[in-house]
Amino acid sequence: MPSVPPRPRRCGLPASLVLGLVASAAAGAPALLASGPDSWLDAYRDPVSKLVSAATADQAAWQRLAVLTDTFGHRLSGSPGLEGAIAWAVAEMKKDGLDNVRAEPVMVPRWVRGRESLELIDPVVRPLAMLGLGGSIGTPREGVVADAIVVSSFNDLESRARDAAGRIVVYNVPFIDYGQTVQYRAYGPSRAARLGAVAAVVRSVGPMGLRTPHTGSFSYAPDGAKIPAAAISAEDANQLQRMQDRGERIRLKLTMEAQALADAPSANVIGEVVGRERPEEVAVLGCHFDSWDVGTGAVDDGGGCVAVWEAARLITQVGLRPRRTLRVVLFTNEENGLRGGLAYRDRHRDSLPNHVMMLEADLGFFPPLAFGYSGPDAGRARVEDIAALLSGLGVGPVNASGSGADIGPSVQAGNLPSLSFNGDAKPYFLIHHTQADTIDRVDPQDLARATAAIAVMGFVVADMPERLGSAEPASR
Amino acid sequence: MPSVPPRPRRCGLPASLVLGLVASAAAGAPALLASGPDSWLDAYRDPVSKLVSAATADQAAWQRLAVLTDTFGHRLSGSPGLEGAIAWAVAEMKKDGLDNVRAEPVMVPRWVRGRESLELIDPVVRPLAMLGLGGSIGTPREGVVADAIVVSSFNDLESRARDAAGRIVVYNVPFIDYGQTVQYRAYGPSRAARLGAVAAVVRSVGPMGLRTPHTGSFSYAPDGAKIPAAAISAEDANQLQRMQDRGERIRLKLTMEAQALADAPSANVIGEVVGRERPEEVAVLGCHFDSWDVGTGAVDDGGGCVAVWEAARLITQVGLRPRRTLRVVLFTNEENGLRGGLAYRDRHRDSLPNHVMMLEADLGFFPPLAFGYSGPDAGRARVEDIAALLSGLGVGPVNASGSGADIGPSVQAGNLPSLSFNGDAKPYFLIHHTQADTIDRVDPQDLARATAAIAVMGFVVADMPERLGSAEPASR
Repeated sequence: MPSVPPRPRRCGLPASLVLGLVASAAAGAPALLASGPDSWLDAYRDPVSKLVSAATADQAAWQRLAVLTDTFGHRLSGSPGLEGAIAWAVAEMKKDGLDNVRAEPVMVPRWVRGRESLELIDPVVRPLAMLGLGGSIGTPREGVVADAIVVSSFNDLESRARDAAGRIVVYNVPFIDYGQTVQYRAYGPSRAARLGAVAAVVRSVGPMGLRTPHTGSFSYAPDGAKIPAAAISAEDANQLQRMQDRGERIRLKLTMEAQALADAPSANVIGEVVGRERPEEVAVLGCHFDSWDVGTGAVDDGGGCVAVWEAARLITQVGLRPRRTLRVVLFTNEENGLRGGLAYRDRHRDSLPNHVMMLEADLGFFPPLAFGYSGPDAGRARVEDIAALLSGLGVGPVNASGSGADIGPSVQAGNLPSLSFNGDAKPYFLIHHTQADTIDRVDPQDLARATAAIAVMGFVVADMPERLGSAEPASR
Repeated sequence: MPSVPPRPRRCGLPASLVLGLVASAAAGAPALLASGPDSWLDAYRDPVSKLVSAATADQAAWQRLAVLTDTFGHRLSGSPGLEGAIAWAVAEMKKDGLDNVRAEPVMVPRWVRGRESLELIDPVVRPLAMLGLGGSIGTPREGVVADAIVVSSFNDLESRARDAAGRIVVYNVPFIDYGQTVQYRAYGPSRAARLGAVAAVVRSVGPMGLRTPHTGSFSYAPDGAKIPAAAISAEDANQLQRMQDRGERIRLKLTMEAQALADAPSANVIGEVVGRERPEEVAVLGCHFDSWDVGTGAVDDGGGCVAVWEAARLITQVGLRPRRTLRVVLFTNEENGLRGGLAYRDRHRDSLPNHVMMLEADLGFFPPLAFGYSGPDAGRARVEDIAALLSGLGVGPVNASGSGADIGPSVQAGNLPSLSFNGDAKPYFLIHHTQADTIDRVDPQDLARATAAIAVMGFVVADMPERLGSAEPASR
C-alpha cells in the first residue's frame, strides 16, 4: 500500500511515551461520551461522535502534514518555503470548501543563516555542533577568535565580570524547563556584550539529545553592542566545562554569515466555517505556519496548523455549521518576530469584541494531551465539561492557563477567553528548533486524536448558546 | 567542586534505562558476595571485596575516559588522535605501575572522509543528513547526480533490477537488529553496483535517533565496480520513501571527497600484571582503542578500553597479583580493518596455546550488564559462578556466547575460551557510529561497576587453580 506510509517510529524519545500511546490507542469513539446525568452537552452527542469518527477514520491529517513538510520543508519567515506553503494552503482550503479563504498580508523579518561553524582551536582542534541564533549578526569573514569563559548562570557571569571582556562567553546552563532556561538564550548575548564579550555561545535550550543543537530567537538590548550569538549542543557545552574545570585554556573560533535582509511579504492564512446564526461572532483556532530553518517544522508548528485546519474541514465535511463563525488562522512569523499575531490584532481590532474565544495549538501532540484555559470562571466550567467528554481521546484535565504567542496580542487587546492545546512538553522540547523536528515525531493517531479534540472544542464553543465566559447558563 | 563534573544526563535514551540505573544503584559492595554453602569462590571473598570497593569508590575510570575523549577526540585509524592516544596510554600505563607496557606496531588503513554532502535536488532542493561510509571511494569533484530508486530489501532491488542502472540506489530498511540490518551497509553498495547503479545510499543502521546518520565500514566485492556509498538518517530515508510512494521523481546529488591513503603506522597497546606462579600463561582483557571519526568514540570503544585498563590498574593498586599473567590489550583498527586483532594473532601465534582466556568489552555499559562465554562447559560453570557473585553490581546471567571482533582471530586460531562483556544493545546502537558517541552517554557509576566486574572476572580467571575450561575442578 504505497500511499499509506509505515507507522512512524519515535526511537530516541522516552519509552514511556510509546507506552502511553499504546495505552490510549485502546480508547476510541464508542466510549467517548461519558454517560451520566443529563448534561448541557447531551445536545452535542451526535455532532461530537461524527467529528471523532471522521477525524480518527483515516490518517488524512498526517498525510496533509507529510505533503506540507516534504514539499515545502522549513518555513522560516521570508523563505520561499513559507510563501509556497501559504499559497498551497489557500488553494487547499478552498478545495476543502472552507468559507472566506484568504491570505491577509503581513510584512515579516528576513533573517538568513548562511554558512556557520564553531571550532574549538585550543586545547585541541575540533568542530562543535552549533546553530547560530536567529537574529544574530554575522561575524567578520575570518571569524571571531577568542578565549572562552564558561559560566553557569548570570550570577556566575557577574562574579567574573572582569574576565568577560574580549572573550567568548559560554553559558552552560542545563535545561530545567523552557521558561527558565530560555532566559539565557534571550538575554545572554546582550548581557555578555555589556561586559565586553566579543561573542556569546549558549548551551542549547532543551534536554540533552544526540548532540543536537537548538536554534531560536533573541533580541539585542536596544542600547548595547551587538555580538554574534550561537547555540551549541549540551554535549559540547559539557566538554568545554570539563576543560575549564581542568584549568585548560579554551579558545574558540566562531564564523557566521548570518544577516538580516529587508522585510519580506508574507501573510496570515484564514479559512472559515461561517456561523449560521451569529456569523459576526468568531471563535479562532490558531497556530503558526512559519518554522525555524532546520528540520521541517513538523511539530513546531506544522502539526498544530494541520490540526486546526483539519478540524474546520471535518466540521464542514460532516455537514455541521456552528451558531457562530469558526475561523482558522495560520499565523505567519511566530518564531522570529510575531508579526502575524500583531498584524491580526491590528487588522481585526474593531472586531475583537466579537471574538468569543481564541485557541492556539503550538506544543505538539505527544501524549498526554490537554487543553489550557484562561478567562472567566463560567467559561472554564464549559471548557472542562467539553474536555471531560474527550477523555476517551486521551485528553486530560484542563490546565490552569491557556495562551499562545500568536493569539497573545489579540487576547490581550480584546481581553478574550483563550485556550491552548498542548501535548507533553518533555519530548516536544527535545526536538524543538532542531533538525530533528520532522514528521517522524508525529504519530498519525496522536494527530488524529488532537484534530478530533480541537474540532469538538471549536465546534461546541462556537455553537453553544451563550458566549464562552458569559455568566448566562447554556440552555439545554 | 570543579574537578567533579556534574552527573551526565542521558536524555534521549529510553526512560527505562534511567530507572534501571536507579534500581541497581542501590546495590553495592556490602551485598556483593552471595551467602550460602561453601563455594570454591570463598577464597576470593576478600580480593573481590577489595576490587569492588576500589572500583566504585570514585569516578576514576570516568575521569580517565573524559581526558581520553576530550584530549584526543575521535581515534580513526591513521589519525593523529589515535596515535596521540596510544602514546598517552603507554605513558599512563607505566605510571599506573603495570608491567611490560609496550606498543606493538601494526600498519593500519588510512581512510579519510573529507568534505561530503547529499542533496535532494528534485522534487525540492534540500540537504539530507548523511555520513559517507568508511572505505567508500569519493565522487568526482562535481558530485554524482542521478535519479534515485528507494528499495526495501535486496529482493525488492532484484525485482527492479532494470531500474537500477544509472541510478542512485537508496536502501530504506528499518533497523531490526545490528546483525540483520548491517547486511545492507556491508553488501548494499556492491549489489547496487552490480546492477549498474552509480551510487548507494543506506538508511543508517540503528534505531531512529534525532536525524542522526550512522557511519560504518563496508567492503567492495573484489570483482565488481566501486561506487560511492553513504548513510542517511532514518528520517531522510522515510522522506525519500514517501516521495517515491507519491510517484514523485527523486533526484539526488552526492558529493564526497573520501579517499584511501597509504597505510599508516599504529599499534596495539599492551600492559600486564605478570602472574606470580605461571607468568607464561595469559588471560587477555581486550577492547579497541580506535573509533569512527564522528563523536569521540567514548562508548565505541573508549569506555571498554578504560574499563579493562582500569581493571588491571585496580588489581595492582589493591596489591593483588594473580597466579597467571593478566594482559590488557587495547587493539588498534577494529572499525575499518581489524588489523590490530590480526596482528596480535600473528605476533603471538606461538604463545596462543598459553592463552587461558580472551575477553573483549565492546558493547557499551548501558544496564543491564552481562558477560557472554564461549568455550568448554567446565569453563562456563566457572564463569557463571563468578558472574553470580557480581549480581549486586547489576551483572545478569551469562549469555550463550562470548566473542569480540578483535579477539576473534586469536580465539579462532588458538581455539580459546572467550568472553564478552556487554551492556544493553538498544541504547548502544542508538548512538553507535554517530556524532553522539560522546562521554555524555556513559554514566560514571555504570562504568565503575563494569570496571569492577571485569576486574573480578579477570582476576579470578587468571588466578584460579585450573585453566578456564579445564575439566579439573578448582581446589578449594
